[in-house]
Amino acid sequence: MDLAQVSEARRLAALHPADAVEELNEMDVSEAGAMLASMDFRASVGVFEQAGLDHADKIIDAMPQDKASALLTEIAADRRVDVFRKLPKNAGARLLERLPAETRAEVEQLLSYPSDTAGGLMTTEFFRARPEWTVAQGLDAIRTGSAALETVYAIYIVDAQGVLVKAISLRDLVTADPLAPISSVGTTRKSFSVPVDAPRDEVARLISKYDLSAAPVLDASGKILGIVTVDDVIDAIIDTDTEDAQKLGGLEALGAPYMAMSFMAMIKKRAGWLCALFLSEMLTASAMQTYETELEKAVVLTLFIPLIMSSGGNSGSQATSLIIRALALGELRLRDWWRVALRELPSGLVLGSLLGVIGVIRIIIWQKAGIYDYGEHWFLIALTVGCALVGIVTFGSLTGSMLPFIMQRLGFDPASASAPFVATLVDVTGLVIYFSIAIRILGGTLL
Amino acid sequence: MDLAQVSEARRLAALHPADAVEELNEMDVSEAGAMLASMDFRASVGVFEQAGLDHADKIIDAMPQDKASALLTEIAADRRVDVFRKLPKNAGARLLERLPAETRAEVEQLLSYPSDTAGGLMTTEFFRARPEWTVAQGLDAIRTGSAALETVYAIYIVDAQGVLVKAISLRDLVTADPLAPISSVGTTRKSFSVPVDAPRDEVARLISKYDLSAAPVLDASGKILGIVTVDDVIDAIIDTDTEDAQKLGGLEALGAPYMAMSFMAMIKKRAGWLCALFLSEMLTASAMQTYETELEKAVVLTLFIPLIMSSGGNSGSQATSLIIRALALGELRLRDWWRVALRELPSGLVLGSLLGVIGVIRIIIWQKAGIYDYGEHWFLIALTVGCALVGIVTFGSLTGSMLPFIMQRLGFDPASASAPFVATLVDVTGLVIYFSIAIRILGGTLL
Repeated sequence: MDLAQVSEARRLAALHPADAVEELNEMDVSEAGAMLASMDFRASVGVFEQAGLDHADKIIDAMPQDKASALLTEIAADRRVDVFRKLPKNAGARLLERLPAETRAEVEQLLSYPSDTAGGLMTTEFFRARPEWTVAQGLDAIRTGSAALETVYAIYIVDAQGVLVKAISLRDLVTADPLAPISSVGTTRKSFSVPVDAPRDEVARLISKYDLSAAPVLDASGKILGIVTVDDVIDAIIDTDTEDAQKLGGLEALGAPYMAMSFMAMIKKRAGWLCALFLSEMLTASAMQTYETELEKAVVLTLFIPLIMSSGGNSGSQATSLIIRALALGELRLRDWWRVALRELPSGLVLGSLLGVIGVIRIIIWQKAGIYDYGEHWFLIALTVGCALVGIVTFGSLTGSMLPFIMQRLGFDPASASAPFVATLVDVTGLVIYFSIAIRILGGTLL
Repeated sequence: MDLAQVSEARRLAALHPADAVEELNEMDVSEAGAMLASMDFRASVGVFEQAGLDHADKIIDAMPQDKASALLTEIAADRRVDVFRKLPKNAGARLLERLPAETRAEVEQLLSYPSDTAGGLMTTEFFRARPEWTVAQGLDAIRTGSAALETVYAIYIVDAQGVLVKAISLRDLVTADPLAPISSVGTTRKSFSVPVDAPRDEVARLISKYDLSAAPVLDASGKILGIVTVDDVIDAIIDTDTEDAQKLGGLEALGAPYMAMSFMAMIKKRAGWLCALFLSEMLTASAMQTYETELEKAVVLTLFIPLIMSSGGNSGSQATSLIIRALALGELRLRDWWRVALRELPSGLVLGSLLGVIGVIRIIIWQKAGIYDYGEHWFLIALTVGCALVGIVTFGSLTGSMLPFIMQRLGFDPASASAPFVATLVDVTGLVIYFSIAIRILGGTLL
């Protein structure tokens, strides 16, 4: 280790851990590992506990085994499990053996919970108070023994069997009479809690709805297993919203920052949906082939195909993104689908008529001003375009709004009803609508 | 007021305020106002302070003036300003007059900050400690005087001029030696703070990056004006992500829950972008008109127009949603644009080639299996489609990834680079690319 590295490690150790993480994220993993290994140990623990550290698993893997296991022993339980979750199997097993027996058992226990549930998010280091304590005893216990805890703002009164009796806040404790029994502190309402298998979004919703600083995680018998803190929830909300935004854009959720992904991993995340959409969109070619005779007779009809199709896709994207977000925020539930349909149908008709009128006016102006000659049946063509727009925008709004409900009903994430997915669905139907209307209106004249 | 209403109000008052809010949101505003007015006053304050209450301004407007002004006087300063921000001008002025002079001055002061800045989010009720206090004096002051404060977890040591000396946490205070001077508590690092005009996203980023429970808001001279708490930030993150999701879907941010919006307001939010996109998309009709001769000679080319255009739109949507999110999370900055371009160019080429190969195979199969006859030059047509896909997908990825940067550079929200916007941009260019390649490859044979 050279002198420059030692002084660089000293500089990083003096920063706020979150700032040190930003600098480490710019280094490659072996460099970051060497830096953490030569840093003051307490500082390296602080840095490693930050959720923002990229490739924490690879950095651990790049560190000397003794340094790595010391670091893993010391960091918060929830962070430790995060790292083990991502470590390659054999590297993980090797490091796990080096941990103290108790820590190892805890890691194995936490690893058994899926990462997107309360059990996978929780930490096991929280402040337990005994029901027989006074307020002063509780405050004393915090004063002497809370250094390793992620939060002391939520305090859990736990009986001898490990069952949660009551959750109180440090605020309640500090403002209470020091001689009062600790279990008399705070509200008389039932304490909030989540079952260990509650999905991540549900935990986030509970904490943000009730402005909690943490939520206790219980097993089926009411025993407290750990807590999920508000920090974890902020991270969870941001992650979920990132995944939803990426799905809405029509790709698999990346699960890593854009620049931190390898080129091939990125291609894989994008190619799947892109190919699926492409294969579905091939139906448009088949639909067009069906109308081959009409196309040959009236090439003028093809001029408006992109315009009409994209309008359906756009109105569908709008509706989809509205509904996905409303479902994600819990503003709408599955049973509300018909209320949405009753709203989207008139919305689609109004928006479609608006575009239809603009479209007809556009054709009239071009024809009358001599910019382009749509032939002798130009007005019927304008009428066809107008009517098709009403039909397609209405159909787009309805499809776009119903698809997230259908996804959720089928057990998929509603966010999978991406804007491109809706556009593709609407495109094929849009062509059929357009040509059906054209045959009806132009039959006997142009067709 | 009838008996049923009184007992209903009593039932609501016994619920957690956040649950009472859910029920009030289902009522119409006059009913909700009557319910709040007949509820226990302390309970109604708790309910009204919840950020989730819809139409709080209309509910206040529907309440008797004396009840409304009593409620407004009592609730948290940040919530109070939220309500005044939305009240119609004269109703707001009428209610403002009924508030105590000090509260009124405070409302007027807070109203002067834009709602999406630190000043617009902050509350003025926070715990001030004096630099000369001991730890025990600080704890005593919290015990006796903190009932009206939104949080006591963040404690601000403020000198006689109102300048922030240091921010400490209740955790630090509780675990410190009671006889130590309060200003010796906590870290020696500089305390975090935000200027009063810092944008909402920046405040959210600071609090979530450093896991703060609140951030102090300072004026230019370092005086502390208020604090933004982590709860407000969760709400701000959710709001911002909702707006971004709606913009990505190609409409104006609603600013209200889907079902809470009036029909006409919803149409207005959607019609603007839809019409703008429609007008731009009209360029596709003009582009097609340019290639009229080619179209008439080779109707077979039209069959693939929807397929090719949508592929460009889809790859553009993917790139846009990735980059918008990465910019929002601060993973990418404006200066990173060329690094992104250097990544998207090869991504686009690989993805485009993939789709191109699938497209060519599709045409070969259809031709060889006799499903459709593309004419004697079928292989050249397949080649045209394949090459066009490579060009358009590459162009789509590049445009989609660069547009958010351009938006940000021009001072717009990058999230305005919606998926439909990108698709529209790519559509017009896509047609030009397709026909240019067709003329190059099919010139002399079909064209």
